Amino acid sequence: MRRARRNASEGPARKPDYRTLRNPFPPMRAFSDDHIATMHAAALKILQEQGVKVLLPEAREAFHKAGASVDEDTEIVRIGSDIINAALASAPKTISVAGAIPERDITLELGNLVFQPGAGAPHATDRIKGRRPGTLADYNDLTRLTQHFDVLHMVPPLIEPQDIPTHLRHYATMNAQLTLSDKVPFIFSRGTPQVEQSFEILRDFRGLSDDAFHAQSHCYTIINTNSPRTIDIPMAQGLIDFAKAGQVSIVTPFTLMGAMAPITVAGAITLSHTEALAAIALTQITRAGAPICYGTFTSNVDMKSGAPIFGTPEHFRASLAAGQLARVIGLPWRSASGSAANISDVQAANETQFGTWGCLMAGATVIIHAAGWLEGGITVSYEKLITDIEVLQMVAELCQATNDTSSDLGLDAILDVQPGGHFFGTPHTMARYQTEFYAPLVADYANFGTWEERGSVDATTRATGIWQDILSQSNPINPNPDRLGGLQDYIAKGTAKGGAAPVS
Amino acid sequence: MRRARRNASEGPARKPDYRTLRNPFPPMRAFSDDHIATMHAAALKILQEQGVKVLLPEAREAFHKAGASVDEDTEIVRIGSDIINAALASAPKTISVAGAIPERDITLELGNLVFQPGAGAPHATDRIKGRRPGTLADYNDLTRLTQHFDVLHMVPPLIEPQDIPTHLRHYATMNAQLTLSDKVPFIFSRGTPQVEQSFEILRDFRGLSDDAFHAQSHCYTIINTNSPRTIDIPMAQGLIDFAKAGQVSIVTPFTLMGAMAPITVAGAITLSHTEALAAIALTQITRAGAPICYGTFTSNVDMKSGAPIFGTPEHFRASLAAGQLARVIGLPWRSASGSAANISDVQAANETQFGTWGCLMAGATVIIHAAGWLEGGITVSYEKLITDIEVLQMVAELCQATNDTSSDLGLDAILDVQPGGHFFGTPHTMARYQTEFYAPLVADYANFGTWEERGSVDATTRATGIWQDILSQSNPINPNPDRLGGLQDYIAKGTAKGGAAPVS
Repeated sequence: MRRARRNASEGPARKPDYRTLRNPFPPMRAFSDDHIATMHAAALKILQEQGVKVLLPEAREAFHKAGASVDEDTEIVRIGSDIINAALASAPKTISVAGAIPERDITLELGNLVFQPGAGAPHATDRIKGRRPGTLADYNDLTRLTQHFDVLHMVPPLIEPQDIPTHLRHYATMNAQLTLSDKVPFIFSRGTPQVEQSFEILRDFRGLSDDAFHAQSHCYTIINTNSPRTIDIPMAQGLIDFAKAGQVSIVTPFTLMGAMAPITVAGAITLSHTEALAAIALTQITRAGAPICYGTFTSNVDMKSGAPIFGTPEHFRASLAAGQLARVIGLPWRSASGSAANISDVQAANETQFGTWGCLMAGATVIIHAAGWLEGGITVSYEKLITDIEVLQMVAELCQATNDTSSDLGLDAILDVQPGGHFFGTPHTMARYQTEFYAPLVADYANFGTWEERGSVDATTRATGIWQDILSQSNPINPNPDRLGGLQDYIAKGTAKGGAAPVS
Repeated sequence: MRRARRNASEGPARKPDYRTLRNPFPPMRAFSDDHIATMHAAALKILQEQGVKVLLPEAREAFHKAGASVDEDTEIVRIGSDIINAALASAPKTISVAGAIPERDITLELGNLVFQPGAGAPHATDRIKGRRPGTLADYNDLTRLTQHFDVLHMVPPLIEPQDIPTHLRHYATMNAQLTLSDKVPFIFSRGTPQVEQSFEILRDFRGLSDDAFHAQSHCYTIINTNSPRTIDIPMAQGLIDFAKAGQVSIVTPFTLMGAMAPITVAGAITLSHTEALAAIALTQITRAGAPICYGTFTSNVDMKSGAPIFGTPEHFRASLAAGQLARVIGLPWRSASGSAANISDVQAANETQFGTWGCLMAGATVIIHAAGWLEGGITVSYEKLITDIEVLQMVAELCQATNDTSSDLGLDAILDVQPGGHFFGTPHTMARYQTEFYAPLVADYANFGTWEERGSVDATTRATGIWQDILSQSNPINPNPDRLGGLQDYIAKGTAKGGAAPVS
């Protein structure tokens, strides 16, 4: 049903496994363990003494019942350390999330490594059609490209399909994710009606009972707090709804140093940690043991323009500090790469790779915005998606085990080849030449003369041909006809009833 | 005399120190320590039983006197482990190399971090004049650009000035390095006559006696073995001449997996290690305690074309394995980044940054080809030099100490800003906004509209303006007039006498 290989240009003999990755990079620290402990203690103190503003009455009520101090006038909830510590004790350290097939299941836990492409952009861009507001056609195409590459493990909402009315958009995005991909899908927390309908669509399409659906995670949402120290209505509702349903919330305060957070890495990460702990507590109050993923997205702003920027040294350090805090609380966690560049150029490539290394060395479990993200998230680029995936595939190669055998070392080959000789034709080389090396996706290794003869095509231009080629192939997903019919029927009936408006 | 700042666009308040860097990244392993020990033992066994071919009679004689077994018919030298172990014991673990001023001195030892731009290319390229054979004008300009950026710590031979006859080329390159830079200069090992004259030029220009020159390292050379297992005449002579003069040799076998070395990382690195140990031994036999830097440059070839490629997962792993072996022998060591791309595009950026991360996580002391290197070393690009330096500066930012103070954490600021507020105007922000963040060299953080209004200029095009601006400024080096006169006089007289032909 699915293509076994990622790329038609790859040799037949080599099939590296990019689906299940462990992070092989030694974690790096931004601060001393003592200073990290100070930051964690500061977060607990802030939660207890100053609290966070929680806009959803149901959430304040839940906090109140759990023993938190709630001021209904100011909507401030002060959360004692006992509540936070209980939440950290009940939150699972390992979360299994089912894809459509077992090969697409993922496990979120410290040490694992999961990549997502860029997400949440209002615009799409490519070299053929240029930059434009995202459409459902883009959403579908970008979902198909995400499906194509094993190194992308979850489907995020790459762009916003702005041509679909907001009360019907969740139908279109669920339809795309389920019929064009077998990977773990994403559901926006835009209020209970959309979330419940999305759960039903997913449950039925997977052929599950309600109990079976709730017993296992099958999808995820992203919860962005409103920094500083606010959890708004749809976000709080999402935390509650996903916790009740046993589905995954990834909490990601988006704290920009010098804007909605202190200008220092230590200050911004302390604020982010404070907000994340409040959100984690709400899930565990709702349902102890609910799957919750810690997260941060802390970068800096350009102090000249106030614009958010990514792939900077400060962003890198913030990832490291967040990783230290994640290891203190022991939860799987999400970090983010990114780029502020306006096109898929050298700045964009360097920022995204730099940001990705920050996440890798921080020991992040999930790295989002790792491919295709431009303009600080305003646009997803088709070409940058391809060129960034090349980097992720090279990282995934480093996750493969090395061979410590004496046959691999090849002492015989070294001794067989005399000074002045070469290793091209040795049995040691011949046995390995089709499988030893990474097969590139977009890199061109021709010499200058050959490359010039072929038209002096740069990597970004070559990337256009690659995504076009993938999209010209048939959709590899062949859903069960009955379930496909059920999906279409559900959406038709829901649409006729007016869909479900987002809650804000 | 020198400009205090790196970049005219940088704010006046921020002066990060990129001159003396320690590597903050936890070293990563490619293989188990046991397997690394096996590789080291294999190298010792190969040296003892199969030996290396040494083409220079003087070097074979030195090995013979030291107790090695020399076969004059085959020119094979078999070196016992006692000789290697004695060499590793006498080779200094720390090497101080003097620049023209103390601020440019560098210390080569494990844990330190020294960057060099791309080196050794026959061609230069830029967006204005295109790709062409390297000239002295290019050599001078690229030396000036290297001087400009504190994050580049040594001057390599970026390109080959092909318009200067080979018997006079060392005069031109020494003149450029000494009058356009105060950083540690490079001398090619192209035979004793050129080396001796270069030493004299440097000694006199620094105003040193012969004894003072020999008592301290002031320059360096690169020794490439001829893999597999051959040390040719100029390389062996260079090892001897530099050791006698107390100047630094950096030994760098260039082992391409699947070509002049086994196809596996373990095999290629074992061969590289073998050759490096032989070269190290020759320096210590010549003069115990002579400054010698271990090195590797091991990457793979494209098995379709046989072309050397860089910034690949295999290259990354080879760096890691070399770092493990360097730590076994305890010597400072040089690794290399690089790119096989034909222009300064996204492939080039991604390969160079990926290769650089391999070196960083391998704990390399010196990272060469870290900026500007294209086509696997055929060309140095002015624009890529600038865009890669941005990455190196961001890495250098990560080498700066973090601030663990409570004032930096900014708990007061967090508590001062209520939910719904922002941190733009807080005293904590205002006190830091000019100094907290890295000031970019080439990155453009304008939003899309502003960027488009300004002409939609990509990073590589912006880089042209940056190198042009630097080269339009006056040369910051003002040599002592007497020494400058002496230099010019020496070169004039040497030229009149016919210079010195390279030895091959």
